This record gives sequence, structure tokens and C-alpha cells, in this order.
Amino acid sequence: MGGVTDRLAEFVAANAGRSFGGDHAVATKAVVLDSVGVIAAGAGSEAGHAALRYARSASVGCSAGLRWWGGPVDVPPSVAAMCTGTLAHALDFDDALPGAGHPSALLLSALLADQRTPVSGVALVSAFIVGYEVNARLAKAVGHRHYLHGWHTTATIGSFGATAAVCALLGLDEPTVRTAFGIAGSLTGGLQRNFGTMTKPLHSGLAASNGVLAARLASNGMTSADAIFDGPRGYLDIYSLGASRLDAFDDLGDRWAISSPGSTVKKYPCALETYRAVEAAVEAREQLGVPATEIAAVECIVPPGTMGPLRYHRPTTELEAKFSMHYTVAAALFDGTLTLDSFTDAAIERPAVRALMELVAVREDVVCRPEDPEGLNSSASSGGFVDVVVRTRDGRSATARVTNVVGSPARPLTEQEQRSKFTDCLRTGGRDTGLVDELLARLRDLDRVDDVDKALTVLTPTNAEEHR
Amino acid sequence: MGGVTDRLAEFVAANAGRSFGGDHAVATKAVVLDSVGVIAAGAGSEAGHAALRYARSASVGCSAGLRWWGGPVDVPPSVAAMCTGTLAHALDFDDALPGAGHPSALLLSALLADQRTPVSGVALVSAFIVGYEVNARLAKAVGHRHYLHGWHTTATIGSFGATAAVCALLGLDEPTVRTAFGIAGSLTGGLQRNFGTMTKPLHSGLAASNGVLAARLASNGMTSADAIFDGPRGYLDIYSLGASRLDAFDDLGDRWAISSPGSTVKKYPCALETYRAVEAAVEAREQLGVPATEIAAVECIVPPGTMGPLRYHRPTTELEAKFSMHYTVAAALFDGTLTLDSFTDAAIERPAVRALMELVAVREDVVCRPEDPEGLNSSASSGGFVDVVVRTRDGRSATARVTNVVGSPARPLTEQEQRSKFTDCLRTGGRDTGLVDELLARLRDLDRVDDVDKALTVLTPTNAEEHR
Repeated sequence: MGGVTDRLAEFVAANAGRSFGGDHAVATKAVVLDSVGVIAAGAGSEAGHAALRYARSASVGCSAGLRWWGGPVDVPPSVAAMCTGTLAHALDFDDALPGAGHPSALLLSALLADQRTPVSGVALVSAFIVGYEVNARLAKAVGHRHYLHGWHTTATIGSFGATAAVCALLGLDEPTVRTAFGIAGSLTGGLQRNFGTMTKPLHSGLAASNGVLAARLASNGMTSADAIFDGPRGYLDIYSLGASRLDAFDDLGDRWAISSPGSTVKKYPCALETYRAVEAAVEAREQLGVPATEIAAVECIVPPGTMGPLRYHRPTTELEAKFSMHYTVAAALFDGTLTLDSFTDAAIERPAVRALMELVAVREDVVCRPEDPEGLNSSASSGGFVDVVVRTRDGRSATARVTNVVGSPARPLTEQEQRSKFTDCLRTGGRDTGLVDELLARLRDLDRVDDVDKALTVLTPTNAEEHR
Repeated sequence: MGGVTDRLAEFVAANAGRSFGGDHAVATKAVVLDSVGVIAAGAGSEAGHAALRYARSASVGCSAGLRWWGGPVDVPPSVAAMCTGTLAHALDFDDALPGAGHPSALLLSALLADQRTPVSGVALVSAFIVGYEVNARLAKAVGHRHYLHGWHTTATIGSFGATAAVCALLGLDEPTVRTAFGIAGSLTGGLQRNFGTMTKPLHSGLAASNGVLAARLASNGMTSADAIFDGPRGYLDIYSLGASRLDAFDDLGDRWAISSPGSTVKKYPCALETYRAVEAAVEAREQLGVPATEIAAVECIVPPGTMGPLRYHRPTTELEAKFSMHYTVAAALFDGTLTLDSFTDAAIERPAVRALMELVAVREDVVCRPEDPEGLNSSASSGGFVDVVVRTRDGRSATARVTNVVGSPARPLTEQEQRSKFTDCLRTGGRDTGLVDELLARLRDLDRVDDVDKALTVLTPTNAEEHR
């Protein structure tokens, strides 16, 4: 009947295996490259260790091997997807599509889940683009009220992106894609309440796993509702609380989210909602030319909705610190920037940083989002602007304003910044950083790779026991 | 802080391994027995075949064996739980706790998931009772608005019941149980939109799987929110749409849902919401003493909310027919009762039954639920009463009223009815019905069994290939 479900199922089936043009492929390869780095880094994280321990306990004996991401081979694809997806989001360092969460991490994880079936670079790029598009459109359709109610879009809507990607990779026909969407409609959860804990990165893993599960159950003959997204008590109605936006699909197939607007590649390993304040604070301090110890007060004026996910005013763990405006601003004022080292327990416990945190005030103000004052149409991390006022002990002050997030399509990371991040990620994950140039070359030429997973085996930890 | 999460975590940890008294154990054994029967029957269903095909595709080679439920042994516990839970609910023949869905199917499935670790009958009964209690309390706390919004309680709240049961079985400590609940809070979905399809029984499997996953991730060091159920944007708030009822926990530990009110064991393999109308229709026809072919009209007057899950007025498949008031009433008028044979494709296609379906009218009327006119505190399948008026071609009419559902604690199945159902289930699942007496004896003496799974191996299909 031309409903959303029909339209998306047709879209996925029609575009499966399609060879995409230059811009789309280039954009995809950039985020895949970035994702490989953060997955490698995530294998060294606490959440990564927990996920891998679970996978090992769930693996079933026989000849357990380990691949580059550090997991056992002999788990079902859904468990592999859950693990990889958790690693990919463990450090909150993976790219984002504001309003839609973190599609890349979960899409790549879902697409690499079945390590017994080689996936070519071309096939991966194609399925990734299709999944990214479905994810972006459905996130827009479910609307911002979904997020404001307490759900984490990466987990909920990401499940459909992953479903679309796996369906495209498997080349499933339109009715089977429709069924897979119907099954996925009963799989999705994910609460913001879990932000600042390991369950937040698990959300990415769950979305990847849900995609694998839905596509594979559908291809094994499981049936489901045939119009899961549509009408009263359909998915969009239930999860938008009645505020779904069907215009989200208006130019489906004409515009592709992977390059328009495109992903925001993260420069700092923390919540995107902190980025503009972090940068403005550093800039204002530089204008004043004082060390952080001379600061008397920091006032951050941010768009409404910014503080929702930033639950921790006095964080005590690495994961909490990533969701703390107070910590990230204070730490950046001390260190001039934020790196993975800014989020170790030792870094968080620095007395001078903790003292400065107490001087940081944050105020949400509708003035910061003039184009969308109620915040219904734009993410708090990307819409409007952020102002930060820094005051010194001797009574001076400076204000800086940041509009576009660093790493966003308007202000992309330089090649050197990408390389530096990738190297940092490999180091954090305990990998040989001598591999960086070879790996970057392979990933930039991903279209020519016959087996993506095999191309990444150089990343396999030398000590297979290291994560036990 | 005495929140719901703390209270339930403490409850689970304190009652793990507890030896429960006579009434509770007797009630539990009765529903376990019933569940074993419906699982065996479910292995012969279409949904069961799809779930098992998936499990085989997800299994990882090596020496794949088959156990009594027909699944491969070498899958992770979460996949085994998903499969068994789907089989257990495949025929909609498993017992129910009105307002809380179908806890038994998913609890038993979760508790039997790790087939490499023997579970004794005593341990199973104990963990089952704890899980059943948590399931019942949380279902009451999330309230009926949850169901009216479109969620399927079996999947959403059942995930916490399964989590509690597995935590109790594993003997996890209070902080770990709290973490497991936090993780489970991000795992739950399940839409009524999928009723009448194989994804409805999958909901039971997903809840079982979620419980296994949450308990095992928590015991492997994954962290989560520490008060997932409590406060604004906590699970109960989000999934009750602001209407959660904290008085649901008032007498926790004093009253046990497994025996008060106790489960309703199903007599007919279809939605519980059809039961009272089915019985009243048969009774009215018997009063009139006419064959079904003499019927001119059937009017069912039912409590508000009854028809929500009964989506199919003209069902075309077995699974749709189970959620059709029109079909179940018409078929029962013809056959005098409903059995598994009433839901074959051939039975559904009978022209005379389809003609009679067109004469069935259903009206929801607040008069049927005087004690709770808005239906906020009682399930439409159990609160109030149902009236059915049958009219004959020659102008006569009779009315029958049913208040208590057959199979409910007020009108339990007789021992003979239980035996007959169990035998029917084994036959449907392709099992040797000569095993009935031996199996019933074992299950009635479950407390003395050292390894529940092993005690059931006599149910292993003789032809291991039969479900491929």
C-alpha cells in the first residue's frame, strides 16, 4: 500500500549489491577506516573485556580461534556481532550521525559478523551504504521525542539499519526483507539510563546482533507482521509516542545520508554533546592567555536538550567522565585537548581538574538554537551553537562561540588527524603501531579487497590470551 | 535507597537456592509439566521449525547433537534459550498469568538453556518460583497502559523474570543481580503487532534469551545503571508511559504469585481472550439443542480491551486463527471444543465454519467489567465476565455467561484433562505417546531429579533429521 515498510523493503532489495559511485564509496571508506581503529582500541577497554569474556563463555569448545578483534571464531554470527559492536562503541570514539546515533560501528560489526563467509570490500561498502540510509531515514521518522523519552537511538533504530545492511549483503528478496524488519521490530530496546556504563557500548553490539538475528530468522522462514512500521500501534507510532514524521522518506534514493549530510568523525573519545563547549572553552582560555589554574569560573551556554545524556556532574569512572560536560571541559582546559589518556582513572582523579570542575556551570538556553527552539528537529550536538564564557581570578573574561562540531562534514578531520587517531587507537588496543601505514593503505583501497576480515588479520593480538 | 531495583535485587539474591514449601512446589511442578508438553508439541510447529533451522545455521559445526527439544547442543545458552522459548510458545498452548503474559514458557526455557551444566529439579523449582515472582510483580508495576500502548508483556517484562530466574540459579550476589537487571533494561522489546505470526512465540524465546544474556554479561563484568527501574526515565516510567504502580511490591516475599493467584493452564491452544466466549457459545448452543448449521447469529459481549490482541476477523493461517474471536467461536460451535486439530490449515478452511464465522458479532461493553470499567487493573482475559447470545434460524435464542476462565486457579484442569493435553502435545510433536505415564511420573516427582534435561532425553526425536 506504499507504506513505510513496503517502501524500505523495496529499497533494500533493489539496492542490494549495487555499485555505488565515488563520493559515497569515499565517505564510506573513511568511516570504515575510523571504525576499524576504534574497534581495535575497544578490545583493550573494560567493556571490551567483559564482552569478550561473555563470548568465550558462550563459545562452544572445539578449536576456538581468535581473530583480529580478539574474539573467538566459533560463536554464532549474532554473538560475534554483539561483541564487535560493543568493542566498536566501547570508547565512545566512533563516528556519529547526529540525530541517528552511531550507525557505522554497528553496521560494520553486523556486516563482519559471519567470519566464515568472506565479504569483499565492494560488497561491504554497498551493504553499508544501504544500511546507513535506512538507519538515517528511520531515525528521522521516529523523531526526537523518541530520544527525549529516554531511548538510545543507536540501539533502537540502529537495529533496523543493521537489519537492512545484512539483508542487502545476503541479497534477500523484498518479502524477506519486510519480514526481517517485522522481526527486528520486536527486538529493539536501549535506555539512555545506561549511559556512562558498559551497557551503552553494548547497545551498539545489540543493534548489530539484532540485525543479524532478524535477517537470519527471516531467511530461515520465521514470519512477522507485514507492515511493522506503519499505522497505529506500528513501530514508529509506538516508539515516537505518536509523533512520527513520514516526510522523512520523501527523497529516499535521491539523497544518501552517507555523503549528505555525512558522518561526524570523532576527534575526542567522549559524548558529541560536549564537543563544542570543550572547544569553545579552550579557545576562550587561549584568548585570555592564562593557565587553567587562573580560571575562576566557566559558563557554558548550550542548546536545550544537551544535558540529557550528560548525566554525570562528578564522574568517578572513565565511562561516566565521557558523559560529563563538567569533566570534559575542565580536563580540556588543563590539557588543551582530549585524548584517550584524558579518560583514564588517574586522569579523572587529578585534584586540580576536579577543583576546576566545580567552577564549571552549564546552562541550557533556547537562544542557542534559534532555528529550532524546541529542539524537535535537530540534535543538541549539532543544531544551533554553543557559547562559553571563561573568567579569570583577576576579573577578566573572554567568550568563544562554536557552531560546527569538529569532525563534522563542515569541519572534517585532516588526514594527519585521522592518522593520529588511528595510531592512538591501535596503541590503546595493544596492537603494533608499525602496522598503521599498511592498514590505512588497505582500508583506503577497500574496494579492491576480496575478504575484509582476512585483510584485517594483521591486527590479531599476538598473545591470544591477553583478554582472558 | 529502597528503590524497586534494590528491592528486587535483594529479593533474588536472598531467595536463591531457597527450598520452597509444598504448595509452591506443587504449583510449579504442574506448570513445568504442562510446559514440557507444549515444548515437545512446539517442536513440530512451523515456528519451531524456523527457530531450529536458525539455531542450526548459527551452530558451529563440531559434533552437533540433538536433545529432546530437537535442537543442536552446540549453540550458546542464549541461542538455546531463544529456541526453546519459541517452541514453548509456538502453539499458544502454554500457561499464562493474566496481566503478566506467559512466564512459565520463558522461565523454563531460560533455566534449561545451558545443557552442559546439570540443573537439579529442586534448583529448577526454586529459581523458577523466584523468576515467576519478579515477573508477576514487574508486570503489575508497569501496569496495563504498557499493554494498551502495543507492547507484549511476555517479551518485555518476561525478560526480567528470566533474568531473575537465571541469576537465582547461578547464585549471583545482590550487586550482580542489580547489574543484570540494568542490562536487561536495554534488551527488551516485543510488539503486539506481531501477534498471529511466528514472531509472537519468538517473543517468549527472546525473553528467555535476554535473561540468559543479562545474567551472563553481568557475571562477566559488564556494568549498567544501578537503578534501572526507578525514577523518571527509568524502565518502569518509560514503559508504563508514566503510569507505573509502585504498590505492586507491597507484599513482596509474603505472597507468591506461583500459588496466589497462580497460573492459568490452557485447555485450548489459542489466545486466552477467546476462552470465555468459546465456552459460553458452546453452552448456549447446548441449551438450544441445535447443530451449528441451525445457528443464525452469535453475539459475544466481552470486556473492553478483549479484542486488542484478537486482530484477525478472517484468519487464513493457523497462527492468525489462534488470535481470532470469530474463528475460535465458530470452530468450537462446530466441534464442541478446541484442540490442536482445530487449528490446522484444513480445519480453518472448512466452508461451513467460515460461513458461521460471518454470523459471529463481537461487542466490547463496559458492563462486562463492572469492577474495573476502564480495564486498568485487570486483564481482559480474566476480569469481569463474558456473555454470548446464540440465535437459531427458527427464532429461538439462549444466553450463557462465563466468569472464571477454564484452567484458571478457580477452575483448574482435571488430572485427566492434563494427561489428555500432554498426550496430545507429544503426539503433535511426533513423540512416542507410550512415554506419557513415565514422563508424567518423573515430572510430578521433579524435586527428586538430579538433572532435569537428562530426565527428559527420552523425548529426543528418534529421527534426528526430522526437523531439518
